[in-house]
Amino acid sequence: MSTPPSSADEPISAGELSARYDKFVVDLLGGIAYGELSGFERLSSDARYSPTLNDRSVLGKMAVAEFGHYEMVCGRLLAMGMDPELAMLPFQRMVDAFHERTQPADWHESLMKAYVVDAITEDFYAAIAERLDGETRGIIAKVRTSTEQTALLEGLLKKMLDEDPRLSSRLALWGRRLVGEALTQAQRIGARHSFLVGLSPEGTQEESAAEVAAILAQLTRGHSKRMSRLGLTA
Amino acid sequence: MSTPPSSADEPISAGELSARYDKFVVDLLGGIAYGELSGFERLSSDARYSPTLNDRSVLGKMAVAEFGHYEMVCGRLLAMGMDPELAMLPFQRMVDAFHERTQPADWHESLMKAYVVDAITEDFYAAIAERLDGETRGIIAKVRTSTEQTALLEGLLKKMLDEDPRLSSRLALWGRRLVGEALTQAQRIGARHSFLVGLSPEGTQEESAAEVAAILAQLTRGHSKRMSRLGLTA
Repeated sequence: MSTPPSSADEPISAGELSARYDKFVVDLLGGIAYGELSGFERLSSDARYSPTLNDRSVLGKMAVAEFGHYEMVCGRLLAMGMDPELAMLPFQRMVDAFHERTQPADWHESLMKAYVVDAITEDFYAAIAERLDGETRGIIAKVRTSTEQTALLEGLLKKMLDEDPRLSSRLALWGRRLVGEALTQAQRIGARHSFLVGLSPEGTQEESAAEVAAILAQLTRGHSKRMSRLGLTA
Repeated sequence: MSTPPSSADEPISAGELSARYDKFVVDLLGGIAYGELSGFERLSSDARYSPTLNDRSVLGKMAVAEFGHYEMVCGRLLAMGMDPELAMLPFQRMVDAFHERTQPADWHESLMKAYVVDAITEDFYAAIAERLDGETRGIIAKVRTSTEQTALLEGLLKKMLDEDPRLSSRLALWGRRLVGEALTQAQRIGARHSFLVGLSPEGTQEESAAEVAAILAQLTRGHSKRMSRLGLTA
């Protein structure tokens, strides 16, 4: 947070570059850990609205996997000599705000939220993984949701929309709201914690901002594609 | 449910005894599975009220263990050729009613609920285990909470009460409410599903009722002892 913004006429030392990258990794892991912990709590609460006990256990299983991710990322932070609680704290308010603003009203909205948030998180992990050191990339690879899980959610949503096509317009609107809130909070996190500056530590502030914008555009495109696959207007 | 009550002048055939026991085991496992699933959802939602992220993960870990128990018991029901969903359904309304009537208002009440419900469930499992066949007893042994988990909760509660002794009277009252609701719902389940008749399949209805009463008295005693250990009036 105290790292000054770089500009083209101010060369950055190797030491500062490395410190900036380390801070970025701690922020990234702290953000992921808190996201997974709160995802676990919200998913398992939302599971209660499932029409069948079987559907409840689908969201429950997903929630349990997120708790496992949370524990793994905390383990990595500890191994780095960091306090996971301190690393998570800066993200608490904004992640909580996202969940408060996107409380599902029923099972349809819960399932849609699980799918949309899960998929966009996956896309985010994929987008940043290639820019990370090997060890951090290894951790990110382990917190990714299994493809079967995502396919399972997509299948449940398709079935739900087939059975009740009147849900389409409501869920399309809900999908837009979810992605809008997610990107708003992501941008706020980026702005306040110079979170994503670490993605191009040698670049200028403008270059970092452009990179962040490119990632957000990529996430939006991925979301639109998924909504189309469900027959919904993104 | 359709099994007629036995009486001393009506001998019961070995086949009927065995059918009665099998139905009892399915009911028992269905009740446990639903209790663990809803415990998982409630605990992980309650975890959100924790004052620190560290405390949140204590309840989270406990919730995750309960989901594992739920999955294990469902696996056993499937292996017995039963539909876990059907086995759980009869218990849904009463377990949900218990949770609705005992929604914690804050972190203190959440932690107390986790501890009280967990401990009384443990005592229940211990009380019935000795009356079961080996295979069912093996499953019950696997769904028991680790002693460390219970000790951890007790430690957190003691610390909380030491730090703020004014909590004592509120938590003592809350403890009584929790155990009252738990035993009320347990008795209802017993009455409506002739659930615990299976504990003494050869006995008369009066003998079964006496056995159930003995178990409930045992659970109440255990609860009182734990409350005393915390310095609370049970």
